[in-house]
Amino acid sequence: MATSKLEYSPVQCKNRISATEDAIYVLGGRWTIRVMIGILGGNRRFNELQRTVTGISAKMLSSELKKLEVNQLIERIVFSEQTPVVVEYIPTPYSESLKDIITALSQWGANHRTKITTAN
Amino acid sequence: MATSKLEYSPVQCKNRISATEDAIYVLGGRWTIRVMIGILGGNRRFNELQRTVTGISAKMLSSELKKLEVNQLIERIVFSEQTPVVVEYIPTPYSESLKDIITALSQWGANHRTKITTAN
Repeated sequence: MATSKLEYSPVQCKNRISATEDAIYVLGGRWTIRVMIGILGGNRRFNELQRTVTGISAKMLSSELKKLEVNQLIERIVFSEQTPVVVEYIPTPYSESLKDIITALSQWGANHRTKITTAN
Repeated sequence: MATSKLEYSPVQCKNRISATEDAIYVLGGRWTIRVMIGILGGNRRFNELQRTVTGISAKMLSSELKKLEVNQLIERIVFSEQTPVVVEYIPTPYSESLKDIITALSQWGANHRTKITTAN
């Protein structure tokens, strides 16, 4: 029989699946994390974000921004005293909680691309 | 004007978006990470996995297992000397590279659920 060490106990396994489910529900979309990185990169205006997150449609960007706002990761600020009205999206202090996830995902992604493209 | 510190430089931002894209391409599906946690939890047989990853269909589980195998995260082992033939899925050593992501996602998910459900 093949053997490999058991990484998670059954209880850990169930708990992690359930907690990960909540995270993926919020962050797991094709664009969510990418839009968030764009905002953490200082892109505050809708058009800037659309240029930075290559390939995203205006409709999708708009829907992602709403989702991030509902989840308290960004704040939508309207400067209504200006003409035309200016809208900016800024990261909330809570968005710093995403740093570990973004770091882990981007490191793994860069490494995995190298592994898969050089392996065969 | 609202201010918040710039988290990523423009170059870091572009690089991270691109590397994260690769990770999300592999791991970002609704089920992928959950199936992987199931396997890391010692569930090796198809039926065990389907019980552990609540709600996944057989068709979807089968497709996720193929994807994980192609990406060298699990190995599919056929014990053909047995009747009926037994098939097991085991994590590869490379799957340990996912630990940081799984830990970060499950911690964030657990914390985020508390935050959102108690905030209002």
